[in-house]
Amino acid sequence: MASSKVVLVTLLLGLAGSAAAGRRRLVSSAEDEPCMKMTLYWHDILYDGGNTANATSAAATNATALSTSNWKNGTFFGMLVVFDDPMTTEKALPVAGQEPDARGQGFYFYNKKDGYNGWFGFSIVFNSAAYKGTLNLVGADLMEEETRDLTVVGGTGDFFMARGVTTIRLDAYEGTTYTRIEMDIKLYECYV
Amino acid sequence: MASSKVVLVTLLLGLAGSAAAGRRRLVSSAEDEPCMKMTLYWHDILYDGGNTANATSAAATNATALSTSNWKNGTFFGMLVVFDDPMTTEKALPVAGQEPDARGQGFYFYNKKDGYNGWFGFSIVFNSAAYKGTLNLVGADLMEEETRDLTVVGGTGDFFMARGVTTIRLDAYEGTTYTRIEMDIKLYECYV
Amino acid sequence: MASSKVVLVTLLLGLAGSAAAGRRRLVSSAEDEPCMKMTLYWHDILYDGGNTANATSAAATNATALSTSNWKNGTFFGMLVVFDDPMTTEKALPVAGQEPDARGQGFYFYNKKDGYNGWFGFSIVFNSAAYKGTLNLVGADLMEEETRDLTVVGGTGDFFMARGVTTIRLDAYEGTTYTRIEMDIKLYECYV
Repeated sequence: MASSKVVLVTLLLGLAGSAAAGRRRLVSSAEDEPCMKMTLYWHDILYDGGNTANATSAAATNATALSTSNWKNGTFFGMLVVFDDPMTTEKALPVAGQEPDARGQGFYFYNKKDGYNGWFGFSIVFNSAAYKGTLNLVGADLMEEETRDLTVVGGTGDFFMARGVTTIRLDAYEGTTYTRIEMDIKLYECYV
Repeated sequence: MASSKVVLVTLLLGLAGSAAAGRRRLVSSAEDEPCMKMTLYWHDILYDGGNTANATSAAATNATALSTSNWKNGTFFGMLVVFDDPMTTEKALPVAGQEPDARGQGFYFYNKKDGYNGWFGFSIVFNSAAYKGTLNLVGADLMEEETRDLTVVGGTGDFFMARGVTTIRLDAYEGTTYTRIEMDIKLYECYV
Repeated sequence: MASSKVVLVTLLLGLAGSAAAGRRRLVSSAEDEPCMKMTLYWHDILYDGGNTANATSAAATNATALSTSNWKNGTFFGMLVVFDDPMTTEKALPVAGQEPDARGQGFYFYNKKDGYNGWFGFSIVFNSAAYKGTLNLVGADLMEEETRDLTVVGGTGDFFMARGVTTIRLDAYEGTTYTRIEMDIKLYECYV
């Protein structure tokens, strides 16, 4: 026990006998010892006006002039994109008719004048044999970094009251046709 | 004590003597034993161009073509709505001149191509004799479910540093004229 | 120890020996004894169509008619603004070429028919010698109050898994040319 930073709070406080009445709360403060870990691949196809059948996201606002007047290719400052993206435990997209392991549902927007940078608010919605419930996330997408960390602010269902961090990394990019992000979900507060 | 999962952390750690200097932190990991519970009715009237006096919310963006091209009635994919809605402990709307028990202030947007689904970010703002302060929430509004859970990510004032879950359920729907949602607020981290 | 509400949880639980493997988790429930405190000045210049070089924020949506039809000057109901604002430990703006101590990156929108009121979602992004990482925040900007509290829902890097409250106060206002907000950041859950 002393070698682990994963603290089973209810047990140490002598309340294990009441565990049947609820969940056990696990808290870890070691970044490399989350109480739950999962990797998902996040697939996005941005709507371009012609790909309605396949698109999973669409811009709800246009980029502002603050973006385009400063840099010839624009940085999409102020463009807000809404998405409902499949997420899978394997890299491949689900085949037709197959449900993904989860869905990422939310929004991001671009917020930099002279480069690419974003901000996310979304849920990871699980409705599979493995998990039912949601994880809710917010955070900065610092696109110039190799990896960026977002905050898991809470969860519901199987992820009741969870907290943690997800690390995202661009795994494949084929223009607006297809973007795949690898996402390591690490929870440090779990209620199991 | 052993029969309850509501853990009075500071007391168990022997620091009760310092409680006068701050708040006591209560943590529960039993879904059916929140450290605070409250039910509010959430009233919304969507602006339709003609109901300025009564409307409490308005669309800030239009639905994208990704929504309407796929389904004849549209699913409002990408429509973002800003609201400032009265919330009451009783089902009835406040009478004219009466302050509601709280206000829900924030936004939601639709994010599904072939059905209704949403995502929320908002605050419940209390400014009454009973409570002063805010609860802040985010989460998925899985509209095909009978009930859906959102995350209480924090709070201020009387709800300092709170965390929890709210369960929402459609209670009345009269088109854009009037929607009422029943919301059970359950806090599992309280600072009292 | 008994006079302090800042509880060094891992130490009290007898796990101090494992601290080398991770971080120590500090929890405070006394509003006046945060485990970390910092004051930042937040500088914003709203894009007005002509100030491209200096502007740090821009409106991504227009105010709705619900706002302007009710009050002759409008209350910007539904206007959503995206920002990438410098933040500094001193009141002065960074001089040209100097990096700010942090950047505030996110959005706010107006949500009141008959007055000014807003809602924020943003990150404070640190990339200096002092700190690297982000703090993520959401909450109501109750603009009629002298001060308002937002929730720090989490953090990354040096602010791994942090939670807390920020108190903001308008410090200077020169129309759309320049707004400065004083922000006291108080963390009550720290992982050091």
